[in-house]
Amino acid sequence: MKLDETAESIRTMNIRGAGLIARSAAEALKELAEEYNGESLIEFTELLNKGRDTLVNSRPTAVSLWNAVQATLKNVKNAEDVTSLKEIVSRDADIFISNSKKAVETIGRIGANRIKDGDVVLTHCNSKAALSVIKTAYEQGKNISVYATESRPWKQGLLTVKDLSDAGIPVTMIVDSAVRWIMKEIDIAVVGADTICSNGALINKIGTSQIGLAAHEARVPMMVCAESYKFSPKTMEGEIVEIEERDTSEVAENLPPNVRIRNPVFDSTPAEYIDCIATEIGLISPYAAYEVIVNKLGHECLFETEG
Amino acid sequence: MKLDETAESIRTMNIRGAGLIARSAAEALKELAEEYNGESLIEFTELLNKGRDTLVNSRPTAVSLWNAVQATLKNVKNAEDVTSLKEIVSRDADIFISNSKKAVETIGRIGANRIKDGDVVLTHCNSKAALSVIKTAYEQGKNISVYATESRPWKQGLLTVKDLSDAGIPVTMIVDSAVRWIMKEIDIAVVGADTICSNGALINKIGTSQIGLAAHEARVPMMVCAESYKFSPKTMEGEIVEIEERDTSEVAENLPPNVRIRNPVFDSTPAEYIDCIATEIGLISPYAAYEVIVNKLGHECLFETEG
Amino acid sequence: MKLDETAESIRTMNIRGAGLIARSAAEALKELAEEYNGESLIEFTELLNKGRDTLVNSRPTAVSLWNAVQATLKNVKNAEDVTSLKEIVSRDADIFISNSKKAVETIGRIGANRIKDGDVVLTHCNSKAALSVIKTAYEQGKNISVYATESRPWKQGLLTVKDLSDAGIPVTMIVDSAVRWIMKEIDIAVVGADTICSNGALINKIGTSQIGLAAHEARVPMMVCAESYKFSPKTMEGEIVEIEERDTSEVAENLPPNVRIRNPVFDSTPAEYIDCIATEIGLISPYAAYEVIVNKLGHECLFETEG
Amino acid sequence: MKLDETAESIRTMNIRGAGLIARSAAEALKELAEEYNGESLIEFTELLNKGRDTLVNSRPTAVSLWNAVQATLKNVKNAEDVTSLKEIVSRDADIFISNSKKAVETIGRIGANRIKDGDVVLTHCNSKAALSVIKTAYEQGKNISVYATESRPWKQGLLTVKDLSDAGIPVTMIVDSAVRWIMKEIDIAVVGADTICSNGALINKIGTSQIGLAAHEARVPMMVCAESYKFSPKTMEGEIVEIEERDTSEVAENLPPNVRIRNPVFDSTPAEYIDCIATEIGLISPYAAYEVIVNKLGHECLFETEG
Amino acid sequence: MKLDETAESIRTMNIRGAGLIARSAAEALKELAEEYNGESLIEFTELLNKGRDTLVNSRPTAVSLWNAVQATLKNVKNAEDVTSLKEIVSRDADIFISNSKKAVETIGRIGANRIKDGDVVLTHCNSKAALSVIKTAYEQGKNISVYATESRPWKQGLLTVKDLSDAGIPVTMIVDSAVRWIMKEIDIAVVGADTICSNGALINKIGTSQIGLAAHEARVPMMVCAESYKFSPKTMEGEIVEIEERDTSEVAENLPPNVRIRNPVFDSTPAEYIDCIATEIGLISPYAAYEVIVNKLGHECLFETEG
Amino acid sequence: MKLDETAESIRTMNIRGAGLIARSAAEALKELAEEYNGESLIEFTELLNKGRDTLVNSRPTAVSLWNAVQATLKNVKNAEDVTSLKEIVSRDADIFISNSKKAVETIGRIGANRIKDGDVVLTHCNSKAALSVIKTAYEQGKNISVYATESRPWKQGLLTVKDLSDAGIPVTMIVDSAVRWIMKEIDIAVVGADTICSNGALINKIGTSQIGLAAHEARVPMMVCAESYKFSPKTMEGEIVEIEERDTSEVAENLPPNVRIRNPVFDSTPAEYIDCIATEIGLISPYAAYEVIVNKLGHECLFETEG
Repeated sequence: MKLDETAESIRTMNIRGAGLIARSAAEALKELAEEYNGESLIEFTELLNKGRDTLVNSRPTAVSLWNAVQATLKNVKNAEDVTSLKEIVSRDADIFISNSKKAVETIGRIGANRIKDGDVVLTHCNSKAALSVIKTAYEQGKNISVYATESRPWKQGLLTVKDLSDAGIPVTMIVDSAVRWIMKEIDIAVVGADTICSNGALINKIGTSQIGLAAHEARVPMMVCAESYKFSPKTMEGEIVEIEERDTSEVAENLPPNVRIRNPVFDSTPAEYIDCIATEIGLISPYAAYEVIVNKLGHECLFETEG
Repeated sequence: MKLDETAESIRTMNIRGAGLIARSAAEALKELAEEYNGESLIEFTELLNKGRDTLVNSRPTAVSLWNAVQATLKNVKNAEDVTSLKEIVSRDADIFISNSKKAVETIGRIGANRIKDGDVVLTHCNSKAALSVIKTAYEQGKNISVYATESRPWKQGLLTVKDLSDAGIPVTMIVDSAVRWIMKEIDIAVVGADTICSNGALINKIGTSQIGLAAHEARVPMMVCAESYKFSPKTMEGEIVEIEERDTSEVAENLPPNVRIRNPVFDSTPAEYIDCIATEIGLISPYAAYEVIVNKLGHECLFETEG
Repeated sequence: MKLDETAESIRTMNIRGAGLIARSAAEALKELAEEYNGESLIEFTELLNKGRDTLVNSRPTAVSLWNAVQATLKNVKNAEDVTSLKEIVSRDADIFISNSKKAVETIGRIGANRIKDGDVVLTHCNSKAALSVIKTAYEQGKNISVYATESRPWKQGLLTVKDLSDAGIPVTMIVDSAVRWIMKEIDIAVVGADTICSNGALINKIGTSQIGLAAHEARVPMMVCAESYKFSPKTMEGEIVEIEERDTSEVAENLPPNVRIRNPVFDSTPAEYIDCIATEIGLISPYAAYEVIVNKLGHECLFETEG
Repeated sequence: MKLDETAESIRTMNIRGAGLIARSAAEALKELAEEYNGESLIEFTELLNKGRDTLVNSRPTAVSLWNAVQATLKNVKNAEDVTSLKEIVSRDADIFISNSKKAVETIGRIGANRIKDGDVVLTHCNSKAALSVIKTAYEQGKNISVYATESRPWKQGLLTVKDLSDAGIPVTMIVDSAVRWIMKEIDIAVVGADTICSNGALINKIGTSQIGLAAHEARVPMMVCAESYKFSPKTMEGEIVEIEERDTSEVAENLPPNVRIRNPVFDSTPAEYIDCIATEIGLISPYAAYEVIVNKLGHECLFETEG
Repeated sequence: MKLDETAESIRTMNIRGAGLIARSAAEALKELAEEYNGESLIEFTELLNKGRDTLVNSRPTAVSLWNAVQATLKNVKNAEDVTSLKEIVSRDADIFISNSKKAVETIGRIGANRIKDGDVVLTHCNSKAALSVIKTAYEQGKNISVYATESRPWKQGLLTVKDLSDAGIPVTMIVDSAVRWIMKEIDIAVVGADTICSNGALINKIGTSQIGLAAHEARVPMMVCAESYKFSPKTMEGEIVEIEERDTSEVAENLPPNVRIRNPVFDSTPAEYIDCIATEIGLISPYAAYEVIVNKLGHECLFETEG
Repeated sequence: MKLDETAESIRTMNIRGAGLIARSAAEALKELAEEYNGESLIEFTELLNKGRDTLVNSRPTAVSLWNAVQATLKNVKNAEDVTSLKEIVSRDADIFISNSKKAVETIGRIGANRIKDGDVVLTHCNSKAALSVIKTAYEQGKNISVYATESRPWKQGLLTVKDLSDAGIPVTMIVDSAVRWIMKEIDIAVVGADTICSNGALINKIGTSQIGLAAHEARVPMMVCAESYKFSPKTMEGEIVEIEERDTSEVAENLPPNVRIRNPVFDSTPAEYIDCIATEIGLISPYAAYEVIVNKLGHECLFETEG
């Protein structure tokens, strides 16, 4: 069956990337609904719930997967019969997929409005949403230039400078240690997001929190670029986003045996260092995370099912 | 036709002031709806949309105009026929107008609750809402006194001290440079608002951000007084509020020809320096701006029309 | 009649404690509704309104009482007839009571997720919700230890250390002055709440704001544990939470006659020093207070009844 | 006698300006010494002490007067006979006068080294030492531009912009309220000094402390330009520099009778907002004030005469 | 022999208190010198060095003991013969003793100058120097009032309020947790010192650092009152001042056996929270500590004996 | 002649390293003095001055060179004849050389006192003085562990981890971006110094200022380890330490031609982020820089030669 295959592909990481995972899951639920040919609303609902669990369990830490499933099924409880339930799931899946597909472009347009002619922009790592903002601003005819960090250990900065260079945008690379040194020349910092927590904290590529700190110290605004499905409903239940530490050979090899290496992938930036988040549903404060999770993503807290 | 005249008066600035513009626009749409005598819901809706565009285009930078039009037409999509549409528009226009008219008074009552007997208040420029708060507190029998800044270049401080003096409130004027000097004697700073951005930043009379900074440095709370129609939906799309620079002759004349003058009217105060915003819908954190714009003003982000 | 007796018991403080007061009030309104045997929706509504006023006036400063009444009656306006009104009130009372009863446990589960294995926790005074968080974390098998302040003048710290000690959790007591000294060893501060204001400020046991300040200075997160009925709708109208000062004999006796004592029970911690609030409706930013009050507690601002 | 005339001229303000007062006093003491034709070292010393008191009492609040007298007489105790005492006083007076005359120029050279090609400088009021720094930097061929505040109420900013304009330096005037607004474009703030206190605090023209605060917020360094005789020995004894409040008609006239005006001339900037002080004895931290007062100005604390 | 008895009395704490210990040690060295009746400068010097070691070892952690010995012997190296060495030691001992005796009074006069008419003062624990400042200000006719903390666990605040009350000064006691709550009403915080470190940090009664933090947050200056012999030369060698933890029964008794108590006596306040230090050699910045230790206390760093 | 050869070797960088350069220069001046066999004090003095200029001009940006020359010749003016001048120069050269040779070891001992048993230390780049501190602490038997940054682009972190690993000290390497992430686990940051400016600012390896900022944010002290000859007299004249930018191929190669790279070697850390500086003359505040330069290094400001 289709849904099981999708779940399997997510599990085996054949389907990768926050956006693709999310859209595949919504599509799978839509198909599951469309193919149902029984007549019991209860049976149908149970089928959907089972499909939801299968998908979510295929990669429990993927925030976008959770959000896609929630968004697709959020109106299930309003259905009055099998037909209306099919329509509801199909419509909500389509809306989610459509919005998701346009999200990066929309974020680009919203975020680009915050960049002024002549601005010097600092970016970090290699975020599609952040680059969409920068490139859109450039395409609007704004005379901007960009500083990109190297972003050790993977040096995604190399990708970023090539990408921006291809787009014709003047770009300069610096090592990660030079962030505070260059900050006095920066007009705005623009970064991506892995996860936005319910209290507004940002989980993103290691080094982001130093940029936020140094930007705040110098009164430079930091704009985060994040699709709404990056907001984590699970943090509503208090879940701490685990900071993954990856293979240490990425940092160095052949060190003396008693030298340890730690290689965290992400860090956490407190909301107080974030000026705004550009999402496809608008430019907001990080403190609006609760509102986004509850009202936009349709999340119901696990503990208030009676309410 | 009436609506065109209203739009023209707004364009020529015969109708001025955030509140008056807003109520005139709501009134014009109400009349447009009431005078419609066709029978087509589609045609009627198109007429209203055209009216909306005419009004909005008469002064595209006026936040209150935009909000008035949005609030009046926010339930158009729920109408089932021409009659109900007339009722809806009429009712929503009336609600908006009524709330708008009472807003300054309501803000006065809410904000006055934050002022304690014996407080020394600092205010800036000449804000009706801020003065409403101060005067209401005084009328409640609180023994307060006020410091008012001169507010160069227009010296609206002169209006403020006269207004408060007429009300019998002890008031002292200082030059704008003396704000940090006097701050240690201040219990609360109370200022108005031109615009509240979606991330909670405040656009207000030049000098407001210095007051916010100096107040925060000394643990003095700053309360902003703002009608809800001062919250800017356009900043949801990332729009940066343009800081208008006015005629330099207001600052000085007959300077040597190679001396330049800059005369900005507003500045931007970050939300972190604002303790609370007194609005007619309650006393809130500046970070509630997103909630106000989406849920209270009924704004739909331009980019999520499918959602 | 039952409701009057409940109100009287609240007034005489036979019914005490934020949770018990709240549930008793909801229960009283439910009984009032169930016992109505007239047929007039208007009369019924008036009866409920009168009951509401009786209850609220029995202890006007009790935030939880206000919230219980609001939550129980929030859907009254949607009733179409006497029968449906009975059902609505009964159902909403039950939901409120049920959620309230489970709140401390739910907060314990949500908040415990924020405590990591090996954490050293600082707590203050004797908060049921905070202790629920700490004990739940310990029961999850996390190897934690706790510092508890003495909490002069009542020394509720003695209760806290006994409680945690009974639960088998390693606990150390310090005097209140030692908070900043110990802060460098602390991983997370966990405190309760008396009231959450609409701008996110926390009213809690005297000394809490010093802990928040010292925690923020050392980049230690402070988590507040608060049932949602601790969020104060009245602060939406600008009400300042009065800081009660109690009998000075609690602090010292037999001092020279011209020595004054001040004995404040609470202080106010600004939202900027609070990392998150663990509530039974999720882990949120303090700046979500407006959203909680309006959308979760169903509060309607007194001043916007027409809207 | 000469010294009495000098004292009288200082008292009647015929001799004005920190530098001129200081040099006149040193000159007067030198003449007093040179004209002594007795043979008693004790008598001679008493004569000088009397002369010192006469001068100091002519304007007790003038820091430079105090410092000039101290510097001229600091080696009196080392004299072995009348002849050597004459030489000592004469030499020390000459050194003080010579250094004083060159001080502004020397500060200009030292301070100018801190200004980089392309810098945008912010200055306040009309300080000779600050302007010496700016003009020296310009004369060194650096391509700089300047923002000058209006400096209400006297509008010394008009003098500053004319002075800089005459020197060919691009200069722009802003109102005092616009300091934080323009700060993001500023590379360095350069201000003068009325007095430097023993704990490093700066007393200067009203508004200076706001500039320091806004500069620190934006990581913009603020350089103070001060002759060493601006360091106040009296603050070593704990003296608080009185903030003079001047005639209120300078601020406004013809206000309603119950409107008060306050017109402070100076404010106090804490050392933590000052990056460095350019003095003629070098570029130093404000926290070196104690060292300057004791070791450079030769001040002996009134209370340690035995030590 | 006298010196040995003095050392023994210091060791057995019959001689207590920083000032008394210091003066006894200077006196003992003076007597040792005066009683020497040999003729060898070398022998004499060795005798003094031995006496120094005996004294210092009697209580190695007493900063004032160390400083007294240093001050008394600082000119030993300049002696040319036995007679001059006797004179030098005798004179320097007398100067130290005399200055020490007057230090608290002198600090009172210097510090009192920083207190303005009408000021509300906050003090902590029971510092003679701080009380000298407060009482001197009151005796100067200034209309002041004082808040004193309880200062758990010993409650020295009771001594302080009695002392101030006896002097006729209006005084109010608060618990230690109420410091931040009261800070908005405070004009200046005045505290004593146990030790001043070479980098300007203050070691003082537990709770002092919280006062410094809360004062800085509210732009309230904190003045430390410290005799110059409180500046620690040993911290020049990097020594960390050990924070003594005292008997836990002072905090509570009869707790469950697995409840631990920690009872630190002191904490460390960073120099950035200290506005000034009132010493008998003048009012200085905490950052002048190095200068005081090297130039006033005559300390030679152990490691630069060749220089 | 010897001195010219030394100067040439410094110019050609055959003599490298701050310490070696300094000692070579002192040695060269000593030899110059010892070999003088004329009889004119004036001629001799001129010869030394010429030697000084030759050395200083061989590498004008080397702070240690300047300081060595100053220290060696600081007492020239006190010489009364050729013989005494020879002795003075010879003695002062020897003292400087001796102190310089022991400086790193002495700093190690002083700084190690600041490290407590159990501390987790963060270090950056590869500073001999910082490593001396860490290794001395370890040799004292303290159970410490170290985090070392990679220190791109040269990756001196690899040298550091090998060095510490060889010494048996547990050490972990992280990328430079992970500094703020790890900071919560750090007890003290220990870094070296290239230059200390007269206002206390630190010039050191790129990335140091980020460490200082992140340490201050988390209340972690940062100790700088610096020989006294790292304090820059030239900054007394206002000189800005030029931040050298090195060959960009160290960062990356084969980038698209329109991608720019910037490769700064140093950055500047403001004194407010530095807890203390461990020097061989003691542990001091960065704000003692003026005192060190003037009193310890014997620097005379170029502009006060008459005073």
